[in-house]
Amino acid sequence: MIDADLLEFFPNPAPDQPYLIEHVHEEFTSVCPKTGHPDFGEVVIRYRPGEACVELKSLKIYFQGFRDAGIFYEAVTNRVADDLHEAMKPRTLEVETRWRGRGGIRSVITATRGEAG
Amino acid sequence: MIDADLLEFFPNPAPDQPYLIEHVHEEFTSVCPKTGHPDFGEVVIRYRPGEACVELKSLKIYFQGFRDAGIFYEAVTNRVADDLHEAMKPRTLEVETRWRGRGGIRSVITATRGEAG
Amino acid sequence: MIDADLLEFFPNPAPDQPYLIEHVHEEFTSVCPKTGHPDFGEVVIRYRPGEACVELKSLKIYFQGFRDAGIFYEAVTNRVADDLHEAMKPRTLEVETRWRGRGGIRSVITATRGEAG
Amino acid sequence: MIDADLLEFFPNPAPDQPYLIEHVHEEFTSVCPKTGHPDFGEVVIRYRPGEACVELKSLKIYFQGFRDAGIFYEAVTNRVADDLHEAMKPRTLEVETRWRGRGGIRSVITATRGEAG
Amino acid sequence: MIDADLLEFFPNPAPDQPYLIEHVHEEFTSVCPKTGHPDFGEVVIRYRPGEACVELKSLKIYFQGFRDAGIFYEAVTNRVADDLHEAMKPRTLEVETRWRGRGGIRSVITATRGEAG
Amino acid sequence: MIDADLLEFFPNPAPDQPYLIEHVHEEFTSVCPKTGHPDFGEVVIRYRPGEACVELKSLKIYFQGFRDAGIFYEAVTNRVADDLHEAMKPRTLEVETRWRGRGGIRSVITATRGEAG
Amino acid sequence: MIDADLLEFFPNPAPDQPYLIEHVHEEFTSVCPKTGHPDFGEVVIRYRPGEACVELKSLKIYFQGFRDAGIFYEAVTNRVADDLHEAMKPRTLEVETRWRGRGGIRSVITATRGEAG
Amino acid sequence: MIDADLLEFFPNPAPDQPYLIEHVHEEFTSVCPKTGHPDFGEVVIRYRPGEACVELKSLKIYFQGFRDAGIFYEAVTNRVADDLHEAMKPRTLEVETRWRGRGGIRSVITATRGEAG
Amino acid sequence: MIDADLLEFFPNPAPDQPYLIEHVHEEFTSVCPKTGHPDFGEVVIRYRPGEACVELKSLKIYFQGFRDAGIFYEAVTNRVADDLHEAMKPRTLEVETRWRGRGGIRSVITATRGEAG
Amino acid sequence: MIDADLLEFFPNPAPDQPYLIEHVHEEFTSVCPKTGHPDFGEVVIRYRPGEACVELKSLKIYFQGFRDAGIFYEAVTNRVADDLHEAMKPRTLEVETRWRGRGGIRSVITATRGEAG
Repeated sequence: MIDADLLEFFPNPAPDQPYLIEHVHEEFTSVCPKTGHPDFGEVVIRYRPGEACVELKSLKIYFQGFRDAGIFYEAVTNRVADDLHEAMKPRTLEVETRWRGRGGIRSVITATRGEAG
Repeated sequence: MIDADLLEFFPNPAPDQPYLIEHVHEEFTSVCPKTGHPDFGEVVIRYRPGEACVELKSLKIYFQGFRDAGIFYEAVTNRVADDLHEAMKPRTLEVETRWRGRGGIRSVITATRGEAG
Repeated sequence: MIDADLLEFFPNPAPDQPYLIEHVHEEFTSVCPKTGHPDFGEVVIRYRPGEACVELKSLKIYFQGFRDAGIFYEAVTNRVADDLHEAMKPRTLEVETRWRGRGGIRSVITATRGEAG
Repeated sequence: MIDADLLEFFPNPAPDQPYLIEHVHEEFTSVCPKTGHPDFGEVVIRYRPGEACVELKSLKIYFQGFRDAGIFYEAVTNRVADDLHEAMKPRTLEVETRWRGRGGIRSVITATRGEAG
Repeated sequence: MIDADLLEFFPNPAPDQPYLIEHVHEEFTSVCPKTGHPDFGEVVIRYRPGEACVELKSLKIYFQGFRDAGIFYEAVTNRVADDLHEAMKPRTLEVETRWRGRGGIRSVITATRGEAG
Repeated sequence: MIDADLLEFFPNPAPDQPYLIEHVHEEFTSVCPKTGHPDFGEVVIRYRPGEACVELKSLKIYFQGFRDAGIFYEAVTNRVADDLHEAMKPRTLEVETRWRGRGGIRSVITATRGEAG
Repeated sequence: MIDADLLEFFPNPAPDQPYLIEHVHEEFTSVCPKTGHPDFGEVVIRYRPGEACVELKSLKIYFQGFRDAGIFYEAVTNRVADDLHEAMKPRTLEVETRWRGRGGIRSVITATRGEAG
Repeated sequence: MIDADLLEFFPNPAPDQPYLIEHVHEEFTSVCPKTGHPDFGEVVIRYRPGEACVELKSLKIYFQGFRDAGIFYEAVTNRVADDLHEAMKPRTLEVETRWRGRGGIRSVITATRGEAG
Repeated sequence: MIDADLLEFFPNPAPDQPYLIEHVHEEFTSVCPKTGHPDFGEVVIRYRPGEACVELKSLKIYFQGFRDAGIFYEAVTNRVADDLHEAMKPRTLEVETRWRGRGGIRSVITATRGEAG
Repeated sequence: MIDADLLEFFPNPAPDQPYLIEHVHEEFTSVCPKTGHPDFGEVVIRYRPGEACVELKSLKIYFQGFRDAGIFYEAVTNRVADDLHEAMKPRTLEVETRWRGRGGIRSVITATRGEAG
């Protein structure tokens, strides 16, 4: 079950510095709501932290919550962006999902919250 | 037969967000109107959705409509751009076609509608 | 239409030498007889010529004959092997077909006639 | 649920030829029975068919049956080999599983039934 | 013999659209005027068409005209740029030549006519 | 033990030129303060020197001081940036750390001091 | 501290099958006994199990025991081979260590116990 | 003009050792006798020398002699093999030609004289 | 011996065009003044010519003059930039040196004279 | 100066095991005796040790002795093989030299002493 409460955070160790954090999760899977077949892809998160940084193990557990969810590519991307933006209040946030091919078409969806970069 | 009516759409799940969608179709083929030999290539679509997103299976079927069409590289590129722009009214749209070599020359054609990026 | 009569041959310029010829055709397409969707792949031919060598342009035209044929991977591979073996009488022959992914599965089929190597 | 009865077969179109078939399934996932975390990998099947060939869509559905199974790498590999060998009676069979890294270690397991090659 | 009259053109099918065309010719050869040895390289043409697009087969024949010409890298690049710019009147034009190594040094020359990009 | 006093410097040989120096250290290891397991990664330093340049062997010894330190990715990145910025007073400084995957997630952290580029 | 007692094993799930297991540990580090500087590399284990298979997490902990050991490449390779061979009694065993470059020289050491392959 | 007399040789400095020499010529061009268009490819020579080794600059000049020759792939390969075998009397000789694609088909031809390997 | 007088020039064949020339010298070696061991790397020159272009063979001979020089990375980069800038008076000039690893650290130094691009 | 006395050895830590050692030296340079220009390449040593193993730093110093030597590719390869074979008495030895291109031709020379593999 997709549950933003699974995310945990720790205080930004350099809150005065505008640095950039990128996490690449290479083992994402959800279910296509139209065909019922599993989708596979990567989720990339890039953000400039505000007060808080997301803890990696909790991020992994949060992503595992999509394993049985029937949800489109575009909705996954915006859901992750919304959950992280609301909980973490980053200076900037970009979420990119890269999906393996289906029927000879592979897709990349990129959403931003705040101003990305 | 090339037929824009084959394209189907679904409502943009995040209409207030300026996010970017990229679909890479790796199995495109049409026919060279000059030699009658088949051409092979990839078609990439990048757009920021307005009200609607293109449904992937219908996009694949639409591309299959070029299989027997005798049409130049430049015309394929602009035809796909026109069909998608008219039907989907995206905020921005870029169509890139990448063609396998012919006589030692390989080609890439890139068209935009609205402002790309 | 698949037609072995399209194949043309020229005399082996070194009939006393056991040399090896490999042709890689990177633009093969046929139709899945089950779904009606096009399949895309590569066909590789490796042979040690006997009296005759296959002419490249005729080989390309022969492959184009599969464009509208509904035929399984395994049958394509064995059909090409049979047609070439019968017409060319090579010392050895290997036909390898490499198919792009379908539903997350990509395939390679390899058939030999005579003794390969 | 892992279920060998999901596998479907079609008659070998060239039963007199010792040809080789390889299917690479790039989207395999199961669950680690020790940690409960998902495992991700690829499963490769290489076989020389006897009377029957495995149908690709049924193979995909069969693999999806491992999605919720708690099972070790070594057991996945041997289970797939046993199920295919029993149902298909191939001349030779090789099953290779390639697993993404865990704790800095990535693994490849290869099992054969009959004589491989 | 280098001869710009070999170039043929066809009307731009989308004259109102500022799209980009790239042709990569991977089999260029000329002769070093200093040593008499052949030079090998690639020539890339990128342009936004005005009224006309260059026809690919004529472009190939035009490039073959350099095969026996003794001419420096820098002159090849500017000659191609001048010939295409004069004949085709593109909105923008960029010509890039990439040369294989000589004496441990490999070179890339890039010329623009109009404003490139 | 992490010790900025291990860093040694030599006078910038071109103090009037705004040139860029990049050092890629491919063998960085520290310890995860949460699990006690070692982390492995690369540290990249990019700077435009002021009066001083960092000496390479001392930089390597300085990095070895992290070998037994329990410290998070984000803290490593900012600690290196602070130590180098304070000791070397560069015109610009960028520190990028690239970490091998943990639990299917790999990370890149990038911090700047002064204005980067 | 290098300690073979850290290794744990589980019963081979297919003891009658001569299958092959490969584990690639990409994050190995020890210390050069001559210079005191750390060495970095990969350790690959390939074995055909007898009664027992090595458990992955214990293998990782065992490898971490080399972190502070001053030991040459050749000795690491043979020590790992001896420890695993004695504890696990595999049918065959191959240990390959691949070391990052030192002074422009990079090395690969491969030891076998029993008959490898 | 193809002329084996352009080849020069020097005495094998280790005539008692069965060592292997490989030269890869990456800039070969000849002319297709059917279409008159230039062909481009690589020629690889592998031999175990007898009394003599081929001198590299003369080998390059010899290859340049094919620049204006109208000759098929198969004939190039066997001509080079014959010329080198006759002049150099190597213990073993293998000549491999790799040709860029024509009409979507690329080719590799391999001839041996004596026993190769 | 490093000697800028070894450089030779020829008149820019297109002095009115702001085109870009890049030469990549892949076989540069000098000596570390601290350890006496040789350093190896690549030197890349990018410039927009003014009145003159550098002749390639003389550039190679000039680079060979560094073979026995004891000189730091940063000094090599600025010395090449100064020598070329003074002799050639280019519109813009960029010199990039890429050095193989030493002690697990590899470096890239980039200097500009005039305004680069 | 080429001097086999620079080589140092240490006792094989596993003299009863037929293991394989490979050292890849990526920064080899000597001088072409014909043109006086430097040659650049890699030297790979593969051996199964007898009583002794070659020490890496001394191997590097030994290779540096070729820096000013005018010597052909074939002679370098056999000289290294002879020096190592005589001093180290390995069970098997293979020396492979890989040379960067000259005039569009790159070369690989492989010599063995004892039986290689």
